[in-house]
Amino acid sequence: MSRPLILVTNDDGITAPGIRALVDVASQLGDVVVVAPDSPQSGMGHAVTIHDPVRIHEAKVFEGIEAYECTGTPVDCVKLAKHLILRDRKPTLALSGINHGSNAAINILYSGTLSAAMEASLEGIPSIGFSLLDFAYDADFDAAKPYLSELISFVLEHGLSSGSLLNVNIPKLPGDQIKGLKVCRQADSRWEEEFMEATDPRGQKYYWLTGKFVNMDSGEDTDLWALENGYISVVPSMHDLTNYKAIPLLKDMEKISYPSSADLRSA
Amino acid sequence: MSRPLILVTNDDGITAPGIRALVDVASQLGDVVVVAPDSPQSGMGHAVTIHDPVRIHEAKVFEGIEAYECTGTPVDCVKLAKHLILRDRKPTLALSGINHGSNAAINILYSGTLSAAMEASLEGIPSIGFSLLDFAYDADFDAAKPYLSELISFVLEHGLSSGSLLNVNIPKLPGDQIKGLKVCRQADSRWEEEFMEATDPRGQKYYWLTGKFVNMDSGEDTDLWALENGYISVVPSMHDLTNYKAIPLLKDMEKISYPSSADLRSA
Repeated sequence: MSRPLILVTNDDGITAPGIRALVDVASQLGDVVVVAPDSPQSGMGHAVTIHDPVRIHEAKVFEGIEAYECTGTPVDCVKLAKHLILRDRKPTLALSGINHGSNAAINILYSGTLSAAMEASLEGIPSIGFSLLDFAYDADFDAAKPYLSELISFVLEHGLSSGSLLNVNIPKLPGDQIKGLKVCRQADSRWEEEFMEATDPRGQKYYWLTGKFVNMDSGEDTDLWALENGYISVVPSMHDLTNYKAIPLLKDMEKISYPSSADLRSA
Repeated sequence: MSRPLILVTNDDGITAPGIRALVDVASQLGDVVVVAPDSPQSGMGHAVTIHDPVRIHEAKVFEGIEAYECTGTPVDCVKLAKHLILRDRKPTLALSGINHGSNAAINILYSGTLSAAMEASLEGIPSIGFSLLDFAYDADFDAAKPYLSELISFVLEHGLSSGSLLNVNIPKLPGDQIKGLKVCRQADSRWEEEFMEATDPRGQKYYWLTGKFVNMDSGEDTDLWALENGYISVVPSMHDLTNYKAIPLLKDMEKISYPSSADLRSA
């Protein structure tokens, strides 16, 4: 039986420890091709590079693994992988991460890691974004490897519903203290106190993004609840952002006409 | 009665014709504060500036309108507006655009215009992103103004369900040929043939994002259908990306355990 083809990317850059851990796990389960940014791209969300060209080079970073580094964003990497590197070799699965730091709750929106996974899902490739709740460079990416291996095997075996990706976050715990996996919904949350103010040598003020993350969701079916209670959170996510429940509520908007209603207003 | 406070931003930059048209319409309906990027930020998606500081300056761009330009992304602009400019003045509404070019269907994901609106919705501010299907610098942003005015008035009067934003796309048509508004869902679509390849003066290859947009959705309830048939499309969108239908399908994943299942596999 032929081994599945697995595309691996991330947003912390091709030399980050997190992607090395993911390549270790993935290469046990399939043939891996890595296309990842050549520099850190955290917080890039679903950005694509429009006003500049992008470049891509082979990278001898992982022993025995086909790998490329790209000057663009995580989403650029997935697009270049499809267009230039893989072409007719359609991956069975795309993996992104392991990100250094949480992408739970609304952080999925800012995350280059998850946007890369979402870009793969737009191409019909089942995909998973992984994040570890530890920003340290020497974070322990090995602890959860057995879980990751099983989770990836599960998706290889069962697939994912069309257009879906999984947002997987891993608590900062020794492997044997992780309680298991929870399939959950994205928690409602927000960022507060978001900027540090400082003054440059010319006396001009500047601002640096920081902030306090606030969970506003008391549900026990959320990713934040799962993580706080020692579970790996798995949120099935999607790129159809339509708020279907709101459609019937807005139907009266279709009564707006031109130019009569505007005339009435200005009359 | 006090006038509503309306925050206006965009992704084409504070000097783009599209934001001027939006400020014209909005300032008839409320007190406007503009916080917009000082340079074009198309395709930035939900990117935030993490690795560099951001700066913000007052901008005398719109006669009689409080306005600021920011070095960051559209999402940075909304965050700075909240944190630094508006503080206790919570806007009734946030508007983003009018974007030069379509943000219909999956383009909502790549769009700085819509990501700015989504960032406002994360803060509980009803928000609308506007885009005109015309990339030309001298595009006619006036044609749809009567519709935009009515649409904004509708949202000021009725509000939007919590966490919602509207993705509004305007066909390239004279105002009296626009058939009206359609409330719709996001069409399923994709980009193909995404890069132009070229060679630099040193003989190195580089790639530039381009592509062909493909509608894969035959539904007559989509934004692409509405636009192709002469309507302004209005898609209620949201920042909760959870694929709720997929949650029960994945419950078996919770049976994965540590280290037993991993041991079994390696045995």
